[in-house]
Amino acid sequence: MYIFVFLQPMDYQKLFSADVPSFMRSPVREIFRKVDLSAICSFAGGYPSADTFPLSSIPALARTVLDKYGSKALQYGATQGVPELRKLIASRYGVPVERVQITTSSQQGIDVCSRVLLNPGDSVMAHSPVYLGALQSFRSYRASVREISPDGPAPKFIYVIPDFNNPTGETMSLEQREELVAIARLHDCLIVEDSPYRELRYSGESVTPIMELAPERTLHLGSFSKVFAPGFRIGWIIGPEPVLEQIYICKQSLDLCPPVMDQYMAAEFLGSGELDRNLEHTLSEYRSRRDLMLSLLEKYMPSGVSWTHPEGGLFLWLTLPENIDTVALYDKALSRGVAYVAGSFFYPDGSHRNTMRMNFSYVPIEKMEGGISLLADIIANDL
Amino acid sequence: MYIFVFLQPMDYQKLFSADVPSFMRSPVREIFRKVDLSAICSFAGGYPSADTFPLSSIPALARTVLDKYGSKALQYGATQGVPELRKLIASRYGVPVERVQITTSSQQGIDVCSRVLLNPGDSVMAHSPVYLGALQSFRSYRASVREISPDGPAPKFIYVIPDFNNPTGETMSLEQREELVAIARLHDCLIVEDSPYRELRYSGESVTPIMELAPERTLHLGSFSKVFAPGFRIGWIIGPEPVLEQIYICKQSLDLCPPVMDQYMAAEFLGSGELDRNLEHTLSEYRSRRDLMLSLLEKYMPSGVSWTHPEGGLFLWLTLPENIDTVALYDKALSRGVAYVAGSFFYPDGSHRNTMRMNFSYVPIEKMEGGISLLADIIANDL
Repeated sequence: MYIFVFLQPMDYQKLFSADVPSFMRSPVREIFRKVDLSAICSFAGGYPSADTFPLSSIPALARTVLDKYGSKALQYGATQGVPELRKLIASRYGVPVERVQITTSSQQGIDVCSRVLLNPGDSVMAHSPVYLGALQSFRSYRASVREISPDGPAPKFIYVIPDFNNPTGETMSLEQREELVAIARLHDCLIVEDSPYRELRYSGESVTPIMELAPERTLHLGSFSKVFAPGFRIGWIIGPEPVLEQIYICKQSLDLCPPVMDQYMAAEFLGSGELDRNLEHTLSEYRSRRDLMLSLLEKYMPSGVSWTHPEGGLFLWLTLPENIDTVALYDKALSRGVAYVAGSFFYPDGSHRNTMRMNFSYVPIEKMEGGISLLADIIANDL
Repeated sequence: MYIFVFLQPMDYQKLFSADVPSFMRSPVREIFRKVDLSAICSFAGGYPSADTFPLSSIPALARTVLDKYGSKALQYGATQGVPELRKLIASRYGVPVERVQITTSSQQGIDVCSRVLLNPGDSVMAHSPVYLGALQSFRSYRASVREISPDGPAPKFIYVIPDFNNPTGETMSLEQREELVAIARLHDCLIVEDSPYRELRYSGESVTPIMELAPERTLHLGSFSKVFAPGFRIGWIIGPEPVLEQIYICKQSLDLCPPVMDQYMAAEFLGSGELDRNLEHTLSEYRSRRDLMLSLLEKYMPSGVSWTHPEGGLFLWLTLPENIDTVALYDKALSRGVAYVAGSFFYPDGSHRNTMRMNFSYVPIEKMEGGISLLADIIANDL
């Protein structure tokens, strides 16, 4: 419709917010920007397997939603989320509906908590390595990220993924959770309990969520991305009402409301029991993949390489001999057709260059042996 | 699953960001929170008419998307938006695809522009009255909003809705746009051209968009909310690449990517030509509503009341005699079953309490006469 001949040169730099230099690119998203994932064996992303998506149910689900809600599913919705979905989530957790805010993805949950709580110079406490998307968010508000400790100045909040941590796959024990709550009480700060993987447990016993130990100071973030489909950008925050009230007001100006049709689809999927039925299939699928990756690592990795043994989630964490630099090794790996994420990206100080995050949910099961043996070979050649 | 007995008292206030006191509730969204819209005659919201939604096409659209893209439609997507949709939007505007960023609603477009550009104390220039969602966003970053003027310190950007402004319904002439560009060049600042209603023209001639006059300094925001359905939260930003690059990085931490299935639905709707066919129907529907509201105002409003005559969009703007306070009148109107938005909410200084915004897209056509005559009666009784 319009033709632009050229753009006049302009100095944009001077117009940017003072936050912009603290913006951090996600190395993971940058990989996706440049590389055709389907052409390589990618252990890099945190993508769920498409085999777990209820693809064939979607058309019927859409029809049910439209029959039930009609044009309401296509109209603007409430900023807090559609009541049907909030109620279902509230009852799944046993909390009052007033304590549930739907978010446009659980990444938005992290962002809006940061937005409502952080000023430049504030600090957040977190155990390194830390989920990249959270580091990006904290840094974008110019907050510093320090290790969790009873000492030092009080942070605004402590950030954790207690179940099947991204990136390590590890789970906090009840004792560790109680200790964390004690530290939060000492600092009189909040806890952001990021919990996108909680339902993905393949072995071991479930541990009490932190929000149950300290409901007055916990913002619990949940997501449909791993138990339904990430293409529907729907998450939730459960938290104390005075904090949720500010999050609600903030969310009005962020995007008015979460995607409405997506919310009704999620509500229908959850409310009909299909989510739980699909979850059984997902768990068995991912359990096999985890077990396969663990056995392949055992089979192929040279000595001096160790890894975590996660009870759930999507990731495990490799520690290589000290002299190996996974950042430097990355281009070589990519050129041979295998991708991972260098572990140092998850450290606020960029340390631990001998570690890497490995995702076991995305690579097709028949490609896994080829990928792991190739990676082992690349590592062995670098020893 | 979990039972919370009670929450310990806690002082949350001290943990909030210094931005929080500047958060502003949307009086419009607050109305929706408290009032059952279907029970009253609401000229308050900016909701499109459900009659314009392609409700019956949605199941087929969903099926086509799933046939064409399969599980890609349910997976995480690129932060910039899915390529298919970006290309279609780029070609509709005649711009390179690199200059198109998909956003999770055009409200997110406003927010992310503010986030990337504004610091506390910065200023934005805008003609009052100003769209509420924009005011909320600017204030949440503690920026001040001043009238557009060549004088005074340079703002970071000038914000306008040049076509069928929310709230007044007015359209800027080409001369006014050229003058605005001249002022932006003088300040060497950007222009945020918020354009969600541009395609909704019912009479008169289309005016050149500002981004065509000054592509190097214009961030053009578009939306599917008024030409498809707002329940799919999909908008876009077209702008100079150096600014888009920062918006892209910021968006990674905001929500990773826009809703993916929604984007493919929008791409299919646009690419198949169905959007343009549906738009014809929408235009004729809204043209009748606008004409009806104008004639009803003429018929019922007491003398001393004047209003704008918009050539498109969803709103018109009433100016009442000086002694009438539309904020004070609001509860009375609501109790009698009619709602509007007091005009002073759109003024950064809260002035112009004798004005109101009227929406003509949402109220069913058969209810309009009752609503307008009732409102006229309430106003006449207050004279």
